[in-house]
Amino acid sequence: MFHLTELLGSIEAGGTKFVLATADADFNIQDRDRIPTTTPAETIQGCIDFFTAHPVAALGLGSFGPIDQNLKSPTYGRILATPKPGWANTDIVGELKAALHIPIFFTTDVNASVYGEYIQGAAKDVDSAVYFTIGTGIGGGAIQDGHFIGGRSHSEMGHATVMQHPDDDFAGVCPFHGNKCFEGLASGPAIEKRTGKRGEDLPRTDRVFDFVSYYVAQLCLDAYLNLMPEKIILGGSVISATELPKVRKYMKELNNGYVTMPDDLVVLTEFANNASATVGDFALAKQVLGE
Amino acid sequence: MFHLTELLGSIEAGGTKFVLATADADFNIQDRDRIPTTTPAETIQGCIDFFTAHPVAALGLGSFGPIDQNLKSPTYGRILATPKPGWANTDIVGELKAALHIPIFFTTDVNASVYGEYIQGAAKDVDSAVYFTIGTGIGGGAIQDGHFIGGRSHSEMGHATVMQHPDDDFAGVCPFHGNKCFEGLASGPAIEKRTGKRGEDLPRTDRVFDFVSYYVAQLCLDAYLNLMPEKIILGGSVISATELPKVRKYMKELNNGYVTMPDDLVVLTEFANNASATVGDFALAKQVLGE
Repeated sequence: MFHLTELLGSIEAGGTKFVLATADADFNIQDRDRIPTTTPAETIQGCIDFFTAHPVAALGLGSFGPIDQNLKSPTYGRILATPKPGWANTDIVGELKAALHIPIFFTTDVNASVYGEYIQGAAKDVDSAVYFTIGTGIGGGAIQDGHFIGGRSHSEMGHATVMQHPDDDFAGVCPFHGNKCFEGLASGPAIEKRTGKRGEDLPRTDRVFDFVSYYVAQLCLDAYLNLMPEKIILGGSVISATELPKVRKYMKELNNGYVTMPDDLVVLTEFANNASATVGDFALAKQVLGE
Repeated sequence: MFHLTELLGSIEAGGTKFVLATADADFNIQDRDRIPTTTPAETIQGCIDFFTAHPVAALGLGSFGPIDQNLKSPTYGRILATPKPGWANTDIVGELKAALHIPIFFTTDVNASVYGEYIQGAAKDVDSAVYFTIGTGIGGGAIQDGHFIGGRSHSEMGHATVMQHPDDDFAGVCPFHGNKCFEGLASGPAIEKRTGKRGEDLPRTDRVFDFVSYYVAQLCLDAYLNLMPEKIILGGSVISATELPKVRKYMKELNNGYVTMPDDLVVLTEFANNASATVGDFALAKQVLGE
């Protein structure tokens, strides 16, 4: 059983850094650290050191992917075929459990985020939501009635097919799909490759943001038509308050009156610094203790 | 409570005909009829007459859409803004309940089909599946762990965006989306408008089936990346055993090694004459009695 004097732990396992934190049962943060993502051995040891110094009753672990989160799978708990050097097939859950001896809820970073939004964020008053991160990569996590969407594995919405804008002849950056998936056309690296500049260094009036808004509108519309969530929440560094009205406008144009779409269906996350994932991790840690 | 001596009822409410049936608790059909879809008053009276002559303990009703299947909605039980003349806003569930005084499970035709596949068909050994009908329209129904996918409403996967093949300049038939959605490019009417012939009257070597296979491959890949179902099952009149290998081939090419896809992920329904929907309706009628 979970004692209120014990703490909950969060690991946001990202491609460039791991964010580690502990919180009380109301998700008030007690301790926090961040460590660079280097080798699996070094980075996982950093996690073990932190949670040895700051013990927790359970951990929520939202990881970059692809991951094996299927409890019935023999390779459950591993990071799968990631292009990140050295990390493919890392048994991150197994190694943490062997050292820390606590229960761990393992899911994707975007599932952790959508769970955080569902518990305390933009989706707290609804029963279904999709969270997209649009940044270095594009990924989506979805929840319906408290359960993550995903049958044999987690969603990979950022790699679904995309209609390229007729004025956009960019060849795309996805190593698998070129210009034929959302990540290939609308991710941070896609912006940088087109313009030679990072998105944050470009004026928001640059044409590239018009294209990106068009692709994100498609991404949201397709998720809506597949899952019919009550909220779609955008996180990551690419889409700002300047683009949100364009995303909504293109989505409305593409839908053309077919399905009912509330005006505030698509919103930006209200959390700074990806904090919805941290809240989600804590809530998932709490959930795993309750089971 | 459900007595084994009582029967279950199914209504497949289609745009051209309603198929009515009764079955025992093991879904063995006892009586069956089909009536043309004319006016709501006449067609619903036909249903009432049939189930008055052949009483059942509960009904599963899988309907053409869009429908309001949200139990919390004030317009629950209605057919919504269908282009079918006279049927928009028909309170089909309310009228049937007022006459028959039995519980009714109301869902879409494709949700009924995926439920039938899940109970007795191609998805009977898995926990998650998507069923597509590719015929007069294109629609998808999805299930995960016994629950239908769909937050504020049911899925509308046939109207998600599509990448048009570079060699295909067809303008599409969707009144809302032209050539920018799957239904616009790959439905039966899209085939007929391109070629002047119905699909069943064309040689399967016609180029149009190559295009259609490419679009259905996208439809399946995008549903897979959104929902990661263990099975994707194709029904409806357009895709035959001749196209299935092409669909699988294009899907593999589009995925290009990114996500793991079992060879038998996409299959054709094993049921003839849309019978998975009937089985699904019976099973949903049984479920509504158990609640």
